[in-house]
Amino acid sequence: MDFYILNNLISKYNSFIVTSHIAPDGDALGSVLALTIALEKLGKKVLPIINDTIPQKFRFLPCSEKVRAFASEKDKAEVMICLDSGDPGRLEFKKDLRDICNFIVNIDHHKSNTMYGDINLVNDSYSSVGEMVYFLLKGLNIPIDIDIATCIYTSIITDTGSLKYSNTTPSCLKVLAELVEIGVKPDFISREVFEKKSLASVMLLKEILGSLKISEDGKIAYMRLTKDMMLKTGAKEEDTDGLINYAREIDGVEVAVLFKEQDNFKIKVGLRSNQWVDVSKIAEQFGGGGHARAAGCTIEGSLEEVEHSILSTVRKYL
Amino acid sequence: MDFYILNNLISKYNSFIVTSHIAPDGDALGSVLALTIALEKLGKKVLPIINDTIPQKFRFLPCSEKVRAFASEKDKAEVMICLDSGDPGRLEFKKDLRDICNFIVNIDHHKSNTMYGDINLVNDSYSSVGEMVYFLLKGLNIPIDIDIATCIYTSIITDTGSLKYSNTTPSCLKVLAELVEIGVKPDFISREVFEKKSLASVMLLKEILGSLKISEDGKIAYMRLTKDMMLKTGAKEEDTDGLINYAREIDGVEVAVLFKEQDNFKIKVGLRSNQWVDVSKIAEQFGGGGHARAAGCTIEGSLEEVEHSILSTVRKYL
Repeated sequence: MDFYILNNLISKYNSFIVTSHIAPDGDALGSVLALTIALEKLGKKVLPIINDTIPQKFRFLPCSEKVRAFASEKDKAEVMICLDSGDPGRLEFKKDLRDICNFIVNIDHHKSNTMYGDINLVNDSYSSVGEMVYFLLKGLNIPIDIDIATCIYTSIITDTGSLKYSNTTPSCLKVLAELVEIGVKPDFISREVFEKKSLASVMLLKEILGSLKISEDGKIAYMRLTKDMMLKTGAKEEDTDGLINYAREIDGVEVAVLFKEQDNFKIKVGLRSNQWVDVSKIAEQFGGGGHARAAGCTIEGSLEEVEHSILSTVRKYL
Repeated sequence: MDFYILNNLISKYNSFIVTSHIAPDGDALGSVLALTIALEKLGKKVLPIINDTIPQKFRFLPCSEKVRAFASEKDKAEVMICLDSGDPGRLEFKKDLRDICNFIVNIDHHKSNTMYGDINLVNDSYSSVGEMVYFLLKGLNIPIDIDIATCIYTSIITDTGSLKYSNTTPSCLKVLAELVEIGVKPDFISREVFEKKSLASVMLLKEILGSLKISEDGKIAYMRLTKDMMLKTGAKEEDTDGLINYAREIDGVEVAVLFKEQDNFKIKVGLRSNQWVDVSKIAEQFGGGGHARAAGCTIEGSLEEVEHSILSTVRKYL
């Protein structure tokens, strides 16, 4: 990754918005906070902005209290650094990004990235954008302190599913090793990110498992997450994270699908695969995107209609 | 770790028994197989022995088909290398080890090790014995091929709970990085070791979550596992492993209890705690035992009766 041009930009400008996608996960927050803390250490004015609720479980991240949603008129910066977002729509600024900043830097590891920045550092060989930020800080000679290390560690273990996914590379493992050397406590972060569950999320798991279905050949497992289930259990959006894995982990399953009922007659479709199906291609057919093993899209229609069209498409890839 | 003396021993002798503890986990099997393959590469005669059933999920490990139980008279070797076993009793040979071999090497990372070997390489700073075998092979200049790498990777991720536990060190992360460089597929191994779930076990999870109850103060979470649930889902005994954690991981819960209906009007009670309650004391009151954070007992009575007496005892400890 060539950070030379970014190095110049950071030297030249003084005010930055650092942002990432809505429904923020550990990589979105971890990378935003790591870069925010690092830029502040350089004496820059930094606004970390995410236009969505910050899940409670990420509140242990240093400086997470500084992250807030865009507040229209007053929020401007010379440079906006967009992290982990394949397209500007995922940032949900509801305003042209050019009206908020002079310069857009797009740092991402999604293959499907639309290259919307003035500088585009897009490389899908990185496990996470947190890992990219690590190499960026190394390139910029910014020392990685325990706070930055905690954020980057969270990024990497979130996006690799704590070594579960195929993006677990030698590079990201070496970075994790260095972060533990700096003082990160792996057991502490793992408990915060993966273990602590709300009662509502456990009750939601029970509901969703009640909807589990398996295709005749056992290769597709799919589940529904209805608005009723959310109401009944009192679960929040963040409680739905990772539920799809209960379908993916069933022995013999190659593709798992979660159909999530939205408002306005729309269904959000989550897709996961285990070994050979490139689910990003399926998602792209429906206007979505993602990675080979994890992708998604949003489709108008009833649960039945969307299930039918997605499942018949998935079958073609098996 | 000083491997010099072991280096001499391996040069000098030709026949080896490599063994580990009963109820073998990924570290027991991973370390036994890694060392077996490595010694065979040196032209040594090696008997990998574990005196217990090998769990199906570890059958993906290279050469796992060679591991068998001790067959009395005919199984002898010059050197016995005991891995991951704090005392010789855990190996369950039912015969004095000295009658089977001339020389015992004891390689372990348990602090409580009784130093029963002629050579004792015991060091609790290693994440796993697999990690110790890695450094042993490095010291012996034995190249680590993909089969050995797969075994050691399995050892490390088993004993660190895939980075969940506090023994996740920079050293073991660097070893993992090198093993992935050699060609190990993290997603494949993770799926084999942690993920592959039977459909029956997922359906059992749904059933058991249906029985979840929380005490008024939110500190006790308890669930039932009835014989009906087992029948209805077709789940096996091994499918019940870890189910209690769904109760333990709920935010605010200190003690989790699983009431497992047995034959003969008995209830097996599993107890877990998160931070301060010593559940072994509770189990001991009912004739059971265990550790501070994980204990159990078996009580005669109906589910209702046993729930009542256990829960009222748990309350006294909160």
